[in-house]
Amino acid sequence: MSHKYSFYNDYSEGAHPKILDALGKTNLTQETGYGEDSFSLEAAKLLSDKIQNPNSSIHLVSGGTQANLIVLSSILKPYEAVIAPKTAHINVHEAGAIEATGHKVISVDSTDGKIKPEQVLEQVKFHSDEHYVKPRAVFISNATELGTVYTKKELQQLSKICKENNLYLYLDGARLGSALMSKGSDLTLPEVSKLVDIFYIGGTKNGSLIGEAIIINNPKLQENFRYYLKQKGALLAKGRVIGVQFLELFKDNLFLDLAKHANKMATRLTDGIKALGYEFLTDSPTNQIFPILPNTVIEKLQNQYGFYVWSEIGKDKSSIRLVTSWATEEKAIEEFIADLKSI
Amino acid sequence: MSHKYSFYNDYSEGAHPKILDALGKTNLTQETGYGEDSFSLEAAKLLSDKIQNPNSSIHLVSGGTQANLIVLSSILKPYEAVIAPKTAHINVHEAGAIEATGHKVISVDSTDGKIKPEQVLEQVKFHSDEHYVKPRAVFISNATELGTVYTKKELQQLSKICKENNLYLYLDGARLGSALMSKGSDLTLPEVSKLVDIFYIGGTKNGSLIGEAIIINNPKLQENFRYYLKQKGALLAKGRVIGVQFLELFKDNLFLDLAKHANKMATRLTDGIKALGYEFLTDSPTNQIFPILPNTVIEKLQNQYGFYVWSEIGKDKSSIRLVTSWATEEKAIEEFIADLKSI
Amino acid sequence: MSHKYSFYNDYSEGAHPKILDALGKTNLTQETGYGEDSFSLEAAKLLSDKIQNPNSSIHLVSGGTQANLIVLSSILKPYEAVIAPKTAHINVHEAGAIEATGHKVISVDSTDGKIKPEQVLEQVKFHSDEHYVKPRAVFISNATELGTVYTKKELQQLSKICKENNLYLYLDGARLGSALMSKGSDLTLPEVSKLVDIFYIGGTKNGSLIGEAIIINNPKLQENFRYYLKQKGALLAKGRVIGVQFLELFKDNLFLDLAKHANKMATRLTDGIKALGYEFLTDSPTNQIFPILPNTVIEKLQNQYGFYVWSEIGKDKSSIRLVTSWATEEKAIEEFIADLKSI
Amino acid sequence: MSHKYSFYNDYSEGAHPKILDALGKTNLTQETGYGEDSFSLEAAKLLSDKIQNPNSSIHLVSGGTQANLIVLSSILKPYEAVIAPKTAHINVHEAGAIEATGHKVISVDSTDGKIKPEQVLEQVKFHSDEHYVKPRAVFISNATELGTVYTKKELQQLSKICKENNLYLYLDGARLGSALMSKGSDLTLPEVSKLVDIFYIGGTKNGSLIGEAIIINNPKLQENFRYYLKQKGALLAKGRVIGVQFLELFKDNLFLDLAKHANKMATRLTDGIKALGYEFLTDSPTNQIFPILPNTVIEKLQNQYGFYVWSEIGKDKSSIRLVTSWATEEKAIEEFIADLKSI
Repeated sequence: MSHKYSFYNDYSEGAHPKILDALGKTNLTQETGYGEDSFSLEAAKLLSDKIQNPNSSIHLVSGGTQANLIVLSSILKPYEAVIAPKTAHINVHEAGAIEATGHKVISVDSTDGKIKPEQVLEQVKFHSDEHYVKPRAVFISNATELGTVYTKKELQQLSKICKENNLYLYLDGARLGSALMSKGSDLTLPEVSKLVDIFYIGGTKNGSLIGEAIIINNPKLQENFRYYLKQKGALLAKGRVIGVQFLELFKDNLFLDLAKHANKMATRLTDGIKALGYEFLTDSPTNQIFPILPNTVIEKLQNQYGFYVWSEIGKDKSSIRLVTSWATEEKAIEEFIADLKSI
Repeated sequence: MSHKYSFYNDYSEGAHPKILDALGKTNLTQETGYGEDSFSLEAAKLLSDKIQNPNSSIHLVSGGTQANLIVLSSILKPYEAVIAPKTAHINVHEAGAIEATGHKVISVDSTDGKIKPEQVLEQVKFHSDEHYVKPRAVFISNATELGTVYTKKELQQLSKICKENNLYLYLDGARLGSALMSKGSDLTLPEVSKLVDIFYIGGTKNGSLIGEAIIINNPKLQENFRYYLKQKGALLAKGRVIGVQFLELFKDNLFLDLAKHANKMATRLTDGIKALGYEFLTDSPTNQIFPILPNTVIEKLQNQYGFYVWSEIGKDKSSIRLVTSWATEEKAIEEFIADLKSI
Repeated sequence: MSHKYSFYNDYSEGAHPKILDALGKTNLTQETGYGEDSFSLEAAKLLSDKIQNPNSSIHLVSGGTQANLIVLSSILKPYEAVIAPKTAHINVHEAGAIEATGHKVISVDSTDGKIKPEQVLEQVKFHSDEHYVKPRAVFISNATELGTVYTKKELQQLSKICKENNLYLYLDGARLGSALMSKGSDLTLPEVSKLVDIFYIGGTKNGSLIGEAIIINNPKLQENFRYYLKQKGALLAKGRVIGVQFLELFKDNLFLDLAKHANKMATRLTDGIKALGYEFLTDSPTNQIFPILPNTVIEKLQNQYGFYVWSEIGKDKSSIRLVTSWATEEKAIEEFIADLKSI
Repeated sequence: MSHKYSFYNDYSEGAHPKILDALGKTNLTQETGYGEDSFSLEAAKLLSDKIQNPNSSIHLVSGGTQANLIVLSSILKPYEAVIAPKTAHINVHEAGAIEATGHKVISVDSTDGKIKPEQVLEQVKFHSDEHYVKPRAVFISNATELGTVYTKKELQQLSKICKENNLYLYLDGARLGSALMSKGSDLTLPEVSKLVDIFYIGGTKNGSLIGEAIIINNPKLQENFRYYLKQKGALLAKGRVIGVQFLELFKDNLFLDLAKHANKMATRLTDGIKALGYEFLTDSPTNQIFPILPNTVIEKLQNQYGFYVWSEIGKDKSSIRLVTSWATEEKAIEEFIADLKSI
């Protein structure tokens, strides 16, 4: 890429150096394969401590789409469906991965990437008998695909409505680190964990080479989960590769520190862009922000920086997506704002 | 694991040090995601040179089961099936991954892990109309799950019978390196490639952390393959992780050198065990060998070494599986033989 | 059911007497099984004459959901999807039958049950690469689930936009008879057939015991279709049962005569209800009508007649669905209107 | 067909005249759709009496492959598999219908169409962990595809081994009538029912136009079964068509009377053919028999009668399949034997 800097996403670089170091140090010990190595087991133990649920069942996989399709196909019966915001990754950006496992994604309108309890209830009522699919799970992401986050109260309400209506609540945490460390976030990791039946903590977008940790709190959903992993091609022969990384991310505070840095860089970008008088598509406190710029400005910026144009806003403007990461340097932020100012 | 040494498999260690080095050196460059990074593209170009097919389409994925299920579900229509030896990985050890994509695996008897042209023909004839599935692909592995390899003549004959009967020939090359470098192997990589429609070259069992390279020679099978990768959760956000590794494996001769070493260690084991008067389940020139030992001997060995008991041979004996790798040291071989002698 | 009369649907009775007669007369001849009997073959020939396409491929199945799931799973590759109006039977009332075959239904807003060319185009543009599903078919029904019909111009435009964008156009004709015979319909059966790649003509809702005729015009979609039928359990051992019925429906003019009667009864209902000052949810010229009545009136009507309450219209009113059929008697219509008047 | 008589199968004719009569008599009453009509409900009640299980759940579908694929996909989790004899209909003659729902059919050797308890046990042991599919059901047919039947003792043993190993026992009763009425059969319908978790009673091959009755004894397997029916396209709008037929078959003794006749005709054929000195492939007491004849004799017979050549027996002989039905006349039997004698 010939840009000064890429704000395309939070997986443009490899892994945080500490993670590479850990892979190097553990490289030559002989380990059991397929996720039963000592690193993966230790990482699972460590994560169960962090979420404060000793009865959770934890499994490491290589990516987010893989996590989503395995989780949902494991918790839904053939006639059951998942309710999700229209903007959900599973509804738009996974090439039909969920439907390919046989399940309908029931999408509901959303402008901020979140779903409301009353929308869940409406779907439950609508799908009344065997001529319809049967809603059985609700999919949310935190942070959402639009950078927004759930408050504790919102998550509690969703959790409640799900329990009352026999729905599993599943949280896609590809950017959970960024959500937890966001300004004004009033949720901790154990709190998030307690409110959902199953979720995953994303490593790939938070400093790992690869890896997401699926955490199953609901005991009903734990049985024989490794069969699903194997059948979908998710049991890596060298599962240690992910185990070592999660161990490194969580043994001290690396996971949250990296998220904090990414958020800080995004906030600086937001502040700088706002100071220039621009508005935003959503109010994002996380590492994805969506400023609205004139198309003429966007064209000039594209010569210098990498980023996606997100959506048209009227005739002459568009929102763009800027993503920061653990690897984003302050210098890049400063240059971007200076360049935007000078256009 | 508390054994002196594990012969359980060829993925007990991490990656060859050169591969880790390459990951470190390339770590901080910003790259495009999802397999379109410069390393993956360069690796694909390099592999197409190595197989001498500039028109091939090459895709990197994280594991063998993933490769198998994506390839077969992409080349078969819903009513089509794949013919495979009874011992095939897809028939036994993938938790029904192929059937989970909707396709029958038609298994045929095999004692050495290989399939014969006449067996293919027999199945084509048997499946005569729409009350049966329609055979459309043949699955082989080289080396096979029993350590054996196909000769050039055998592969040519299979290739011919497949072409004559409108069947795609797919080769699972999880241990293709070991097959190519095995004693008396009369096949080169370009020759193997020319004789099959589609195959994969295994990295995981030959020195990588993760990674298999799917190579599609038949142009009919190339269209929109990335959709299958995405839908099955195989497009890694940081695809560079596999790209860098294949580049390192193939830019010089590392891939074959590592396979050569593994074979050499296996041959020493074989020779040493034969010298003690023991027989073998199959005649394996590759890095998996299957000596037949008295159960009493096996029990004692298990206190010192890690390995799988493979199959019962009469009442008092069993075959065991010993696997060597790029990381196996001569010392381990010598000790094993000495210990076996002293039992 | 203890109602005076049921307007629940157009499949409350068995078959038209002529159809039962035909089953009786042909009952004891010995025939080949699985749809290759002389009646099914003759019916297919007759239908290909009626649609004026000697190169069509025609298959008889037992029901509409079965037809839809077989057709769509046969024409879509695993990563391909079908675009449909939000109200489409496949999107709402088939318990996820299409998704169960692995395919996403991309739904677009619709208040009248129809889809517009620009909506198709919008979806094609939105689904731009392998991170999305790939739209490859458009599903329409005629008459729609809301009783409306496509004009010739509308169908031509849809057909054109599909061809231009490499999309198959599939028409669910569960109530095609009623659509063709509706007031002001400017489409003939051959014209409909020419404008779509594949469609089915519904027998069940137009006088048969069971049976729908799938008609494949696009030669690319014809290959090995019987494999799909068999695999989905749609090849009846006694396929003759459907063959005899379609032969009877189409050898003279029975199919259209029955539809004409159903429409006539619906029009009388509509006229009578309109004369009482009530409005309708949609402007339906076919055998399903949707008057809007005060909830208090609906409650009283429900004591005497069977029908579904369709949707809430504000606080105090709802639309109801009244369906007529080949078997509806004028007397029932007259009584209903009289009773409605007297409430 | 230009043969004197067809012994191809037991579905060459339409329905027994009493069944057609019943359809005629009930034709014009208005009924609820989708299997909730009064006839289907009454038939279910009647069948639950006949099997002496008031807690069974009974559903009527149109064909055997449909029944098999719905039952198995409803009782198996995605990673679970069904064990079946190699000759099982689901393993050979259903175009991969079971695999298309995602499940492996684990086939075991069988020469008589039956499976032995020890074969079941062997498979359970072999499939030991998540790298394999997990056997969870056993499929048997009675009568089998080779005309043989299970004795009470055999079925009890199978039932016991299934219970002990957490396997559901599923019986395909496409020809259950013939099995129950076969010479020396020591099983009654209630006894069969008690020994299996789920089974179906075949109507199509025993006098109906269409129709099989799925009977679910195991309460765990009953929940939401209608969702599966709907999703697979098996809920007929006019479910009454099957309800009326089963009511007629079971309200008196028609079902067993028709099976008895078919068996009687088959036995006469067997006796006549044996008297001419010919041997048989299997010892079948039911309505499918498999005499072994010289190929030259078979060729001559084929000019006069319709039947399938089943399997080669050495160079010069083959087994053929002759099937009788409720409609087979004694005259046809006598002529066949006379013609065979005169060749």
